[in-house]
Amino acid sequence: MLNTEITAGAELVQELVDANHILHHLSIVDAFGHVSVRHDRDPARFLLARNLAPVRVRAADILEYAVATGEPLAADPPRLYLERYIHSEIYRARPDVMAVVHNHSPAVLPFCVARGARLKPVCHMAGFLGGASARDGPALFEIRNHAGNASDLLIRSQALGAALARTLSDGRVVLMRGHGCTVVADTLRVAVFRAVYTEVNAKLMLQSLPLGALEFLTPEEADATRITNEGQAARAWDLWREQAQRADQDQ
Amino acid sequence: MLNTEITAGAELVQELVDANHILHHLSIVDAFGHVSVRHDRDPARFLLARNLAPVRVRAADILEYAVATGEPLAADPPRLYLERYIHSEIYRARPDVMAVVHNHSPAVLPFCVARGARLKPVCHMAGFLGGASARDGPALFEIRNHAGNASDLLIRSQALGAALARTLSDGRVVLMRGHGCTVVADTLRVAVFRAVYTEVNAKLMLQSLPLGALEFLTPEEADATRITNEGQAARAWDLWREQAQRADQDQ
Amino acid sequence: MLNTEITAGAELVQELVDANHILHHLSIVDAFGHVSVRHDRDPARFLLARNLAPVRVRAADILEYAVATGEPLAADPPRLYLERYIHSEIYRARPDVMAVVHNHSPAVLPFCVARGARLKPVCHMAGFLGGASARDGPALFEIRNHAGNASDLLIRSQALGAALARTLSDGRVVLMRGHGCTVVADTLRVAVFRAVYTEVNAKLMLQSLPLGALEFLTPEEADATRITNEGQAARAWDLWREQAQRADQDQ
Amino acid sequence: MLNTEITAGAELVQELVDANHILHHLSIVDAFGHVSVRHDRDPARFLLARNLAPVRVRAADILEYAVATGEPLAADPPRLYLERYIHSEIYRARPDVMAVVHNHSPAVLPFCVARGARLKPVCHMAGFLGGASARDGPALFEIRNHAGNASDLLIRSQALGAALARTLSDGRVVLMRGHGCTVVADTLRVAVFRAVYTEVNAKLMLQSLPLGALEFLTPEEADATRITNEGQAARAWDLWREQAQRADQDQ
Repeated sequence: MLNTEITAGAELVQELVDANHILHHLSIVDAFGHVSVRHDRDPARFLLARNLAPVRVRAADILEYAVATGEPLAADPPRLYLERYIHSEIYRARPDVMAVVHNHSPAVLPFCVARGARLKPVCHMAGFLGGASARDGPALFEIRNHAGNASDLLIRSQALGAALARTLSDGRVVLMRGHGCTVVADTLRVAVFRAVYTEVNAKLMLQSLPLGALEFLTPEEADATRITNEGQAARAWDLWREQAQRADQDQ
Repeated sequence: MLNTEITAGAELVQELVDANHILHHLSIVDAFGHVSVRHDRDPARFLLARNLAPVRVRAADILEYAVATGEPLAADPPRLYLERYIHSEIYRARPDVMAVVHNHSPAVLPFCVARGARLKPVCHMAGFLGGASARDGPALFEIRNHAGNASDLLIRSQALGAALARTLSDGRVVLMRGHGCTVVADTLRVAVFRAVYTEVNAKLMLQSLPLGALEFLTPEEADATRITNEGQAARAWDLWREQAQRADQDQ
Repeated sequence: MLNTEITAGAELVQELVDANHILHHLSIVDAFGHVSVRHDRDPARFLLARNLAPVRVRAADILEYAVATGEPLAADPPRLYLERYIHSEIYRARPDVMAVVHNHSPAVLPFCVARGARLKPVCHMAGFLGGASARDGPALFEIRNHAGNASDLLIRSQALGAALARTLSDGRVVLMRGHGCTVVADTLRVAVFRAVYTEVNAKLMLQSLPLGALEFLTPEEADATRITNEGQAARAWDLWREQAQRADQDQ
Repeated sequence: MLNTEITAGAELVQELVDANHILHHLSIVDAFGHVSVRHDRDPARFLLARNLAPVRVRAADILEYAVATGEPLAADPPRLYLERYIHSEIYRARPDVMAVVHNHSPAVLPFCVARGARLKPVCHMAGFLGGASARDGPALFEIRNHAGNASDLLIRSQALGAALARTLSDGRVVLMRGHGCTVVADTLRVAVFRAVYTEVNAKLMLQSLPLGALEFLTPEEADATRITNEGQAARAWDLWREQAQRADQDQ
């Protein structure tokens, strides 16, 4: 049932469907949130589902979009995600980025809501949150600085997507005030891995605070653990895909 | 197996059954709590189940009630919810309200129990909790002001229902001290959506407090996000109904 | 497969099996914890399973015990719960008690571990925790006062069971330091209901504390809500039994 | 499908497979973490799966390793866990240890992350965390003292495994800063039991802290409860294995 207008590889489309389901079954997305991947044959395009809850996405729901505009290439598209510009503008600003996850996962949100809170790596699975290039953890995007005090908080234009990409800069994760986060990587599997462990590390910080001051990873530990653990990401992906597929069959 | 005395549309009855199941599967209600909808052909009536845990409600369990009295129209009714006057009196006071959810969801309760706590929107999914008309978030109904210090806290009369409706005023949510909350909307789907995201926002506030002072949505942001997100409520409803139906089949 | 030595009614035995499964599926017991009921034809006996995780209990696993000794009536009994004297001594001291639940449910434990903490009713479902006869909530049993500083904390003798029953006094719930709680009622269904809502109220208190001082039910509200809600316990029991039976079938 | 190079008893291999699945279904391990058992016929060997998420481990995935080196005995092994030296070095230093669990369970991590936090037994199920030989609870292994400030936190060499074993000393649990914990016992079932109740006690401590100062078990109570409860571990193991097997079949 592959969408006939899709020019990307069928394997990549399937991997994107799997990513949608994995993120749902790990409670990183629910009815809302979305995940995209850059086209494997044309870096000026990316793949993203139509407006649909991620667990309901099938291959036929995947559309191709232009990085330059954030608009679908199909002539008569179905209803689209309002925030597709998160994806397009990050792909435009960051040629190294191959996949983008946007979500509202529950333990990350407090870091988008409490003034001055910083999300930083406390455990070895989340080194990607810090390191030499991100000593204070992910930056926070305050949409009021770009859209004023009366916006609906959504990244609903190219201009807002570009502003978000500027805040992300060369980072791996950007927090969005009152809204959620966006996670990027150079493969789809690592983007999913990072979205999951951003949530894990956030939850761990929240649970640890009552016990006292936290011992964060050093920047060097953060970089070293990131390299090691992302080399183990296949073990997690294989498990998560298997679990998501079983959950889908049960349904 | 549609109740023969039902004069409302079969689609509306089915939607009310779905709402009961969705609220259960999202843990907004459990053995207790209930949801009603105004009659689609006669605004002086509303539909509500007999005394039954929401997940067990089927079409044959739905009864028609008079807004004027809170009593069922059927001659020889089965056992009824003690608190049906929550529904009748709100429909009476608020012609704009088409659906009412009453529940005890776990993260909302703390805001009904801790003195001086205020539930206010911190994330874009819950703008309906604030806005220009509700700058301090939902009002709290203190039943002691109406029933004294020895009541069983239930809205078990028209007089108490009317008092609750007065506290709700033109709001969307009213908290009930030591008890739970009641949520209203101009469609059944939006009432369910609001009940779910009232819980989500409450949980988020509880988890964020240890991190520091919270950044609430501005009234203008709250109104703008409410309008946008309630336009996306179908995406959530379609997912939730599908998940609830699958859970029912599993059973 | 009813145990041939059972002289109690088959319906009561089945209800006790159901209670075991319900308490498991609501996470009130896990591998540990147990529930008993007084014999329906001989108040000097009670029914309790052999040493087995509650969800695995079937009718054939139910034994009859003597209230006077806490020992089984069968000649060659299987392995027994070490703490059967919790049950026997409460039945001995309290002729009004018809059912006893002993458990380690997760939100109750903090109130058995933190010095000076008091579990008191904050919501209308848990009025039984307070009222005119229990203004400060359930008493705490400190086993060190009876067994010294080197015990294994278990109620492993008639003497310790009698001491626990004295601390329970005319109450409905007794907390046990470092261990769990024991809940009693005049029917099995209400004992299960109280065990569940003891956990719910404890969790609610824990979640509410960061928000500020708590507003407890007045003693009069506690008594009034207890009477009302225990009259609604059938709605919960019917749901819980249905859910437990479905979960068992899935297995 | 038993691995042809396995010389250990088939029952022990199956028990190790069960332990992998139990630890997964109780959320003690996820994609990461591992469990081993000493060889039943040759104490210089131990059994551990290849590099695989525990719930996916089958008998054919179990390999034999040399205690002396931490390397597999098979000539052409598949991909291995990087941290197999946790197991080998503890078996080498501790002839009494017959099983080792390494995990990152969520409530234990805060005690590995917050400076100065101590995990100590507050409930009777977790006496093994204290006692006369462990009055302050498990020691914390700070890898910076052994590998400097730029490590990836993993026990990826015999030298680091030996350092961890020295910190464990004659203990039952060792915490690992920013990483997780390692639990040992003289049987596989008790090692699993201890890993589970280390998590339970940690969660209980975290939930109790807002209520006030905690009442820990005395060293004598800790020893007494450990002896009693580990005598009841079969009740838990039988339940957990049954539940894990059912979950596997559902899948």
